[in-house]
Amino acid sequence: MWYENPLTSKLGIKYPVIQAPMAGGPTTPQLVAAISNGGGLGSLGAGYSDPPALRKSIESIQKLTKNPFAVNLFVPGKYSTDPEKIKKITEILKPYFREAGLDEIKEVRPLIEHYEQQLQLLMEYRVPVISFTFGAPEKETVRSLKCSGVVTIGTATTVDEAMDLESRGIDIIVAQGFEAGGHRGTYLGSPEDNLVGTISLVPQVADSVDIPVAAAGGIMDGRGIAAALSLGAYGVQLGTAFLTCTESGAHELHKKAILNSTEKDTVLTKVFSGKLARGLKNRFTEEMERYESYIPDYPVQNSITRDLRKASAAKGKTDFMSLWSGQGVRMSRSLTAAELLHSLITETETVIRKLTDNPLNPSG
Amino acid sequence: MWYENPLTSKLGIKYPVIQAPMAGGPTTPQLVAAISNGGGLGSLGAGYSDPPALRKSIESIQKLTKNPFAVNLFVPGKYSTDPEKIKKITEILKPYFREAGLDEIKEVRPLIEHYEQQLQLLMEYRVPVISFTFGAPEKETVRSLKCSGVVTIGTATTVDEAMDLESRGIDIIVAQGFEAGGHRGTYLGSPEDNLVGTISLVPQVADSVDIPVAAAGGIMDGRGIAAALSLGAYGVQLGTAFLTCTESGAHELHKKAILNSTEKDTVLTKVFSGKLARGLKNRFTEEMERYESYIPDYPVQNSITRDLRKASAAKGKTDFMSLWSGQGVRMSRSLTAAELLHSLITETETVIRKLTDNPLNPSG
Repeated sequence: MWYENPLTSKLGIKYPVIQAPMAGGPTTPQLVAAISNGGGLGSLGAGYSDPPALRKSIESIQKLTKNPFAVNLFVPGKYSTDPEKIKKITEILKPYFREAGLDEIKEVRPLIEHYEQQLQLLMEYRVPVISFTFGAPEKETVRSLKCSGVVTIGTATTVDEAMDLESRGIDIIVAQGFEAGGHRGTYLGSPEDNLVGTISLVPQVADSVDIPVAAAGGIMDGRGIAAALSLGAYGVQLGTAFLTCTESGAHELHKKAILNSTEKDTVLTKVFSGKLARGLKNRFTEEMERYESYIPDYPVQNSITRDLRKASAAKGKTDFMSLWSGQGVRMSRSLTAAELLHSLITETETVIRKLTDNPLNPSG
Repeated sequence: MWYENPLTSKLGIKYPVIQAPMAGGPTTPQLVAAISNGGGLGSLGAGYSDPPALRKSIESIQKLTKNPFAVNLFVPGKYSTDPEKIKKITEILKPYFREAGLDEIKEVRPLIEHYEQQLQLLMEYRVPVISFTFGAPEKETVRSLKCSGVVTIGTATTVDEAMDLESRGIDIIVAQGFEAGGHRGTYLGSPEDNLVGTISLVPQVADSVDIPVAAAGGIMDGRGIAAALSLGAYGVQLGTAFLTCTESGAHELHKKAILNSTEKDTVLTKVFSGKLARGLKNRFTEEMERYESYIPDYPVQNSITRDLRKASAAKGKTDFMSLWSGQGVRMSRSLTAAELLHSLITETETVIRKLTDNPLNPSG
């Protein structure tokens, strides 16, 4: 049994392991519930979910677990919908759409943001933990969530962001290092300037805030968890490690690609969504790289490429899929979520025991 | 007292802490000897040293310590001396030279590589440890060094490089993460494609080789050391942390800049030397960024900018200085080398003890 620490006690969980919210498919209710039932914190990545879909997911999770779980929302930011830019990128993408069997690029869907409705809905369902990415919630939002007993998590890629989130009343910081898969959470300054490796970021964040920090980015096993705890984090958030689990809703080709990749195979790219994110290199990241300056803002580009990504997956080809992944890919495993969580805990215990007993430690 | 581990026993040192070789000034004999006398491994960065200078440094170190120390050499690589490129960059740099009070750019000095002579000299002086960067020594070189009782260290930025170094008979791998200050050690593939964070790189390297690994990049205190040991490293190599020590020969402005910077202030740049390196942003990195495609190969560019960097430092301005630094800058300290080493060891012990005793650990 693990004692409580400031992070686990705030969240009401046994093990300081958060399964990262991965919007767009991977975080099925089965995955989220398996982690929460196992003593960690499962997270639903709801950034792209409209209210009916979100309602359905939460109801499913609540049927599968009585334990705390988190729902992650994207805090809306400013973006341009410059029609010239959209026209230009549509031209560039035409051959790709044609190759994927799509006759033409549909009118760019109206970009509906559901943030306020999503928040209302999470309150209605008494979701115990809400995590935020791509921005910081308003102070008033945090205050009213707290009044309802909700625990809040914010995502920071720098010390400045961590301090900003703390000043808004956020309970827990996820410090997202350079190694992390998926979108960068940066919201103060440019994502390209906020690329700090986990081993540097975590202690500098931990020194700058009084609230507990969870380390994210490149952590895949008990060695990474023990390292994060050494660095001053009270917990960890793992995405890629859980993406390849049986219960994950990620496309099988995506899972297979991660399981067969190396530490050199990921790239930071804006080509899929307009926002910097880490994923496995493929034809799309490589061929589109030269058009980076033409890519419209998130979420415009995300909306434009959606059909292309889907069509690629439906054809069983990874060429145009967004294969989000962190840098720890050689350590990825194909297990059930419960098996992986159990292994992570056992491995962490072993690493800590070895660190204490083994030749590296003072003999006193 | 610390027990031996495979790294400390190979090196014949007490604590698994290597002071990184930082060529071009910081690694004075006083710094190197202080670390070796304190139970770590001091390293002289001799990449730029001609034989007489190297001789002098080694003799000074040997007067100051009887303990093992390392000398680091740059393994020469291929590069182009395209006169057109040199002419073009000379044009671009003219206004900077003028501003620094240098009348004109001297003829680019002939690039003399002293690698073979340096190796002979290290054998002559029975230098106990030789570390290599920017490449892998020939198998025959490693074999003959081993015959003479020399322990060899190679620098890897990927699993492939680590495996290549091991196959050449190298004794110890320094796994250099993305966070590291100074030049990237990459020699297989392009440095831009080999940027893996320490927390991801170390376990993946440790899983792929049988020889001991030291973690480098972003480690600044006992938390980072305990993290590295958790990740499967048997030791650490710290550069930036020792650069601000009293005995370090780094320019006072360089030390001051590191002590006053944050985790966001470094950048990976080729503008000083032609080889990718991490340093603090300044006027030169920012203004020269747009000319990156015009920059000649290392060591040509390094030779061209040398006078400019020196003149800037002499004028007491950091504008054109190469302010090498890793990402852990908020944790930098102004101490003597002995004080810092002692703190690092005590902190590591404390972190490991807390990890064992505190709420994060199984109570059994």
